[in-house]
Parts: sequence; C-alpha cells; structure tokens
Amino acid sequence: MNAKIYLDNNATTKCDERVLETLLPYLKDEYENPSSIYTLGRKIKEKLSEARKKVAKVINAKEEEIIFTSCASESNSMAIMNAVKNHPKQRHIITTKVEHASILEAMHDLEQQGYYVTYLSVNEKGQLSLEELEQAITKDTFLIVVMMANNELGNLYPIKEIGALAEKYHIYFHTDAVQALGKIKIDVRDLKITTLSLSGHKIHAPKGIGVLYVKENTPVQPLIYGHQEHNFRGGTENVAFIIALGTAVELIYQDEYQTNIKLKYLRDKMEKEIKERIEEVYIYGDLENRLPNTSSIAIKGIKGEELMLLLESFGIYVSTGSACNSEIAEPSHVLVACKANMEDYSPIRISLGKYNTEAEIEEFVKRLESIVRLKRRK
Amino acid sequence: MNAKIYLDNNATTKCDERVLETLLPYLKDEYENPSSIYTLGRKIKEKLSEARKKVAKVINAKEEEIIFTSCASESNSMAIMNAVKNHPKQRHIITTKVEHASILEAMHDLEQQGYYVTYLSVNEKGQLSLEELEQAITKDTFLIVVMMANNELGNLYPIKEIGALAEKYHIYFHTDAVQALGKIKIDVRDLKITTLSLSGHKIHAPKGIGVLYVKENTPVQPLIYGHQEHNFRGGTENVAFIIALGTAVELIYQDEYQTNIKLKYLRDKMEKEIKERIEEVYIYGDLENRLPNTSSIAIKGIKGEELMLLLESFGIYVSTGSACNSEIAEPSHVLVACKANMEDYSPIRISLGKYNTEAEIEEFVKRLESIVRLKRRK
Repeated sequence: MNAKIYLDNNATTKCDERVLETLLPYLKDEYENPSSIYTLGRKIKEKLSEARKKVAKVINAKEEEIIFTSCASESNSMAIMNAVKNHPKQRHIITTKVEHASILEAMHDLEQQGYYVTYLSVNEKGQLSLEELEQAITKDTFLIVVMMANNELGNLYPIKEIGALAEKYHIYFHTDAVQALGKIKIDVRDLKITTLSLSGHKIHAPKGIGVLYVKENTPVQPLIYGHQEHNFRGGTENVAFIIALGTAVELIYQDEYQTNIKLKYLRDKMEKEIKERIEEVYIYGDLENRLPNTSSIAIKGIKGEELMLLLESFGIYVSTGSACNSEIAEPSHVLVACKANMEDYSPIRISLGKYNTEAEIEEFVKRLESIVRLKRRK
Repeated sequence: MNAKIYLDNNATTKCDERVLETLLPYLKDEYENPSSIYTLGRKIKEKLSEARKKVAKVINAKEEEIIFTSCASESNSMAIMNAVKNHPKQRHIITTKVEHASILEAMHDLEQQGYYVTYLSVNEKGQLSLEELEQAITKDTFLIVVMMANNELGNLYPIKEIGALAEKYHIYFHTDAVQALGKIKIDVRDLKITTLSLSGHKIHAPKGIGVLYVKENTPVQPLIYGHQEHNFRGGTENVAFIIALGTAVELIYQDEYQTNIKLKYLRDKMEKEIKERIEEVYIYGDLENRLPNTSSIAIKGIKGEELMLLLESFGIYVSTGSACNSEIAEPSHVLVACKANMEDYSPIRISLGKYNTEAEIEEFVKRLESIVRLKRRK
C-alpha cells in the first residue's frame, strides 16, 4: 500500500507540529489549575489570556467576547439556547436545511418544546434565497442561524447580507463558521453577527477545543455551569488545547494567504483533470462561491460509497459527506436539500488541507480514473 | 528555591507519563475522525470503545452507560438538566450547601425558573443528616444531588443510604464523584445512582475530559446536540483525552490499593506531626470518614491565605479551598456551611497525590512550623 493520501480535511485535520510543540508542556510539567491563586496557577491563566487574544484577533473580536468551549457542537448548542433564554416571549426561528447536525438536532428539540422553525430551502446548487429569508421574518422571529460555509459542498453563504437583515429586524444572528475559519476572512464587526462558532480540529489543532464568540453586551446564559470563563462556561479549562488553538490561529495569520492559493490551485486542477479524463462527471455546489479546498464530485453510475471504499484500498481517504452524519445510513441531508439526483450522481467529497501535495492530487486523479474505467468496463 | 512540592491534588493532578504515552499517537499520526466510515476512522472508534469499557469497569457500569464529556462541570450540568427535562411536572430538588460550584450555579438558575431547592445543612464537621434529607422529600421532589466526597474537607457522604432513599421514593439521584474516583470504591449498581460525574484531571489524565454515567433505561436529553455518543452528546470526540482517561482508570485498578494506603499514611503522619509541633491547630471535616489524601488544617490566628503565600515562597503549593471558587474573594461556601470560626481558624487545604513523597511531607511540616513560629513571635 502507498503512503496515506488524506483528502478528508473537512472531517478533521492533522495537528500541526508547531501546535503540538506549544501544547505539550501543559500536558507535562505545567499542569497547575489556572484558577489556583498561587503564581504557578496565575502564570497559566495568563497563557489562556494570550490564546484568547490570538483567537479574538483572527475574527476581529475583543478578548472578552471569546468563550472557550470543548467543540463547535457545544458552541452551537450554547448559542441557540442562549438566544432562546434571551427571548422568552418569541417562538420563531429561521435556519436552513443544510446546517450541521448540532444545529438541526437542537432545532428538532425546540420544535418539540413548541417553537416554530422555518428551514430555508436551497436550490440545486445549494444556494439560499435572501428574499425567502426576509419573507420568513415575522414579529415572533428571535433567531436566525445560517452557517458561513457548508461542510459538504463548500458553499459560502451571504453572511454579511443576512447580518444586515438581522440587524434591521433586531434578530439574534448565529453562524457556524467552523469550515470558514482560515479559508476566508472573518470579521465579526463587519458581519453583524451576534454569536459565532469555531472549532480547533478543522485548523490543525486537536479535537476537543472550540470557541463561541459572543458580541459584547449580549447576555450570556451558561450551558455548563461554574465560575470559569467569566461565569459563562464552567469546568477546569482544557489548558493544553486552548494554548494549542492560540498557536493554530496564529499560523492562520502567517499561512492563510499562501495556503488558500495553493488549495484553490490544487482543487481546481483536480476538478479540471477529472472532467478531462472521466466522462459524465458532475460537481455539486456553488462553483463560483465555494471554499477553496472542497469539491463534491459525482461520477455517473458509480455510488460515492463504492468509490470511497475503492479509493481506500489505494490508501486514499475521501468521504461521502459529513463525518458527523456518516454513521447514518440515510443520504446526506445537504444533497437531499439540493434535490440531487443521487441515483445517477452520488458524490464523494474531497476536502484538501495544507499538507496535501500536487503529487498526491495527481495520484488521486490517476487512481480515480483507473477505478472508473474498470467499473465502466464491466 | 527548592524543587516544587505540589500538595494541591484536589485542584488538579500531574498527568501520568503512562497516560501521556498512550494519548500522544492520537495527537500525531492517528488523527482521523472516529465518525469516518473508512478503516482508519473505524480503528479510532474501536479505541474509544476500549476506553469506554475501561471507564465502565472502574465504577461497575456497562459500556453503554458511559457518556464522554469535556469535564465534570458539563456532566453535572447535563445530569441536572436531564433530570429536569425527564420530570416536567415536578418542581422540587434536594441538594446540599457543600456541592461544587457547577451544581450550585445550576440550582440558582433553576430557582429563577420557578423550581424549589432545599439546600441541606451540614454540622460543624461538614456531616449531613439523613433524617433531614428524608424529611425534605415531598411528592414534588424529582431530584436529589449529593456529592460523593467533598473537595475541600474530604468528607465522604452516605451515598449508599441516600441511594436507598432515592429508590424508595422513586427520585432521580445524581452524585458528583470527581474527588472519590480512585480513592474509594465506586459501584454504581450497589449505590443505586441514576447519574454520576467523573473527571480525568483529578486522576492524572489531562484537563478537558469528563464522564457522565447514566443508568440504563434512563432517558437522556442532550445538552450538546449532535450524533456522537449515541446521539446523547454531540461534537467530534476528544479522541486523545478519551484514550488517556481509559489508561488513567486502568492505572487505578493497578495502583489504587497501594496508593491509598500511602496517601493515608502520609496524610495522617502529617496531621499528627503538625499537631505535635504546632499549638492550637484545628482540623476541619469528618475525621473518621474522609478521603485518604485530604486535610483542611487551620492554625489559630494565621489566615489560610497568608499561610498559602508564605508556603509558596518555599515552593510548596497548597490551597485555601476549591480552585473552582478561588477567584471569588468570599470565604469558602463549604466552611460557611460548617459555621467555621474563620476569624480564629482559617484553614489551608492540603491534598496529596501519588507523586508526593515522605520527604516532601517532612519538608512541608518543617516549613509550616518555621512560618508559624516566625508569625507568632511577632
């Protein structure tokens, strides 16, 4: 078997060695509790504050607007429940059919509690209609939840325009920016966001660390009780991973521009070559307005799952959708929302990361081509 | 300055090197998402299952009764909110005045939502009255929350007897067993517990991993939404720290008996020598029924905070109470509940861990004695 070719970076990413280096001392000798009032505890607390400043900077927020959580699903759950608790008299929420499972599951729970949820449709390219969104707003609407970038298609949504609408109608606006971080500029001031979720493990930090940005002057109700994080989020801090996240976002400042040029170059080249070398290929999503690293490609007549498994036998790892939903045997809710013709065109998702090389992409395209030839010859 | 003498193991503990060794591969090359359906993802999922089995075994639970969380504060918050959601028609909760901040803050929030909370008193030794608990039970009572061992005093509470009462009256019973794990035997079958919280960083695993045990057939409402942990707790798993926790509990099976004999020997020797060498010493808590590692010692006329700082100048680290509350300038709620005479007897908490040596304890007692002599001579 060849060396592993990992093309599933929207599911999770390899920890950057520079990130690992900065976190290790906090798993070894610098283990004190940051809430301890002796000097060793205070020193660690200062390190957390440094990491918080770095995270704030990458989205143009203030340090005190950053709450560290254990994952973006926690951030999403906390943001939604915070909006609910802050608006006890209103009952209507607007979201989309293509959100992450943590959002959709929270919505289903709220519906059972008597809330009304409008799930905005998308067209066959996965695009939202701003008009439809504005028309859905009523006096009872207190929350809009729209992701910044879709994990399966890579589609970018018009967060700035939605933020303007939310501001106009005085509605709490939450966005899940997990897939966007590091790939497009995020400026919370410019975007008029109330709350925003981030995750470490999508940007080469470890699994187990997330962020909730909460706009200043927004009341915060804890989901996890306790005195840490300014009483907003209890629990002894995951010191090592908070510091890791600080380093990971610092690397974004340094690498982002070049990395994204490279990702887009590799992704576009890959798609071009696949279309040249294989017939009847369909690429899902909003091709003009996508993350630079993501491609949802379908080969007519060959199921994505089968392709995935055949590629795995060559040490090439892609997915058929979101890892967070992958245990469910149903077709991806995102593709269902796009009314995808899954019988003929069932896609694989290729999501590139900064460690992918041109040689890997060439190898992938070559293997894909040979698999398709073999399958079609039968 | 001497080498560090860390006597604050109830606040947090140093990661065991054997734990660190088992987690590191998952921060390096084995980074795949456990929800990914290709082999590399499934292999990691199996590792999570192994860790879950180990954790289940240490409290005599079943694998499927274990939910991994990010910390015990999350477990506590989730357990309480789960009990609330499972009993929509009842409004009364019984807890104690000496619980962890994550419990008490959740209770204050529920009181604001119209719930009634009975906070059981403790006597001057920090002991609860079972009669008082039973008398507090009404038809409206749906939840009892009592910690297994107190973090400040080390007191052990009569969980088995409380479990029997909870069963008799069909009441959901939650216990925070964070400080008890590894120090006393925990058998959830025997104790009739509905839910129980554990934390990794108190047993030489890293900060950022916790457990909620939920008795089989108890409905579980997620606090964090998503498909992971059998739909009970969303968010990509903190793979490295879950595996770390598995190793840390395995070390408990191996070391527990010897470690606890050593801890008790050192703690008792320390207390004996302090009482012999320093006049007017008071030891808080239930001296007959305590964790083997904890001591809450007050020296008449010298404030705990001052002692703590003076000891720090010799590289000796103790605390004045719970780290989770230490930023609050108020006296410890536990000592207030004990009606402690804080003017005369303001304690320091010494909490030993498996890395402490007899030489360290001797050094600590010697330094404490010299500090007290100097202070009293003035």
